[in-house]
Amino acid sequence: METLSLEPILGIKVKRYKITIEYDGTNLVGWQRQEKGLSIQGLLEDSIYKLSKERVIVHGAGRTDAGVHAYGQVAHFDLIKTINLNNIRNAINHFLQPNLVSIIEIEEVSPNFHARFDAKQRSYVYKIINRNSHLTLMHNKAWHIIKELDVEAMQKSADLLIGNHDFSSFRSAHCQALSPLRTVDQIKVTKLNDYVEINISAQSFLHNQVRIIVGTLVKIGGGEWYIEEMKKIIAARDRTKAGPTAPPYGLYFLHVKYL
Amino acid sequence: METLSLEPILGIKVKRYKITIEYDGTNLVGWQRQEKGLSIQGLLEDSIYKLSKERVIVHGAGRTDAGVHAYGQVAHFDLIKTINLNNIRNAINHFLQPNLVSIIEIEEVSPNFHARFDAKQRSYVYKIINRNSHLTLMHNKAWHIIKELDVEAMQKSADLLIGNHDFSSFRSAHCQALSPLRTVDQIKVTKLNDYVEINISAQSFLHNQVRIIVGTLVKIGGGEWYIEEMKKIIAARDRTKAGPTAPPYGLYFLHVKYL
Repeated sequence: METLSLEPILGIKVKRYKITIEYDGTNLVGWQRQEKGLSIQGLLEDSIYKLSKERVIVHGAGRTDAGVHAYGQVAHFDLIKTINLNNIRNAINHFLQPNLVSIIEIEEVSPNFHARFDAKQRSYVYKIINRNSHLTLMHNKAWHIIKELDVEAMQKSADLLIGNHDFSSFRSAHCQALSPLRTVDQIKVTKLNDYVEINISAQSFLHNQVRIIVGTLVKIGGGEWYIEEMKKIIAARDRTKAGPTAPPYGLYFLHVKYL
Repeated sequence: METLSLEPILGIKVKRYKITIEYDGTNLVGWQRQEKGLSIQGLLEDSIYKLSKERVIVHGAGRTDAGVHAYGQVAHFDLIKTINLNNIRNAINHFLQPNLVSIIEIEEVSPNFHARFDAKQRSYVYKIINRNSHLTLMHNKAWHIIKELDVEAMQKSADLLIGNHDFSSFRSAHCQALSPLRTVDQIKVTKLNDYVEINISAQSFLHNQVRIIVGTLVKIGGGEWYIEEMKKIIAARDRTKAGPTAPPYGLYFLHVKYL
């Protein structure tokens, strides 16, 4: 399906909208429109077309993979037609509803706003249930780990990742970023009963960076690797030295900060 | 399928087990074994049979309806064979796993323990998402209410239900309890952003009592009825005077207290 952005068409006055989107990624192929399967971007673009008869590109703040969820993905798009804000949200949500994607906020923004390029900080949360018994209510919504995790060890090794580093050990082979340098602002590992949460924030991430960090922290939390191993993994700049890529269904795109 | 309790068979030494069960009730017909569909009781009894080749009755602390979830349903059953506790739990969980029912705790108890008759307090939580946009991650896990709820008004009217009352207005037509008298120990209505939680505890409940209380509180929270209306509804002892039965998918069986 062709999708034409209206932005470059000279002389046409458009309004730009910023939306905050929540989704259950279980049955979706991820943010980006693909040849096959339902994507968040594709569902949004198709719903906007049904509402406005305008073919737009919806620009997301981050490309989440298949199975990854979002509480607060952010995106923008342009419309020529003038439609009341609540009506835009309600109409798009009407078309989205069967697929567990929902616009929770909408606002008109400056035509210069860009959901991806203007993002100052992206925050993710990764959910783990650490217990013997298999998951029910959190099935497809958290990573089930039986081996008891040492959350203090995970926090100490996570602290070694804070700041600007070459994260080559923590990027997927498919990562298209020009530079492996990233600045991680914060990683907080918390545990309440059998529920472990890893909160992580950075201006931007490499492909699979959060999931590989989580996979590595779980190796350390499970006692397979020492805390200090994290330093060697960073220095190696070699994907094979880090832990496995944690499964997508534990990951939630939480929030995007703009200035 | 026939299910014979081993309890009354004289001369046979049995051990009694207390289990705590978590489940996602979305695709289940409820706690109780039915002619058709998967029930929690039926899945447990069948799994225990696969493990032990013993046909047992699993006695639950409360009968939850189709679609209702549990974090901490409690039940007991007897076995003649002596099997290690962790092996019982792991084997039953192995058979339960495809159906989102999971034993999270198991312990051996006195042969006099009864999950239903010994329960001193049952606690439920009812989850509501109070916002315009449809649900995604909480689909089938909470009641979606668009109209803004006045949580203070809900708490004040809920306070009128505390104590011993004739709850005839709050029982389904199918309720088999001999007496409509029940003592509600606590109702707490809290709100955090768009998430409303109603926590309710009593030694025992009439059929649909929690869901009818929630349906009534939502009428009051939405401004359709005054707070004081609750007094008239109790006094009427007439199901048609209370609010609608809230949908099952917002309800979670949380906890059972034994002394």
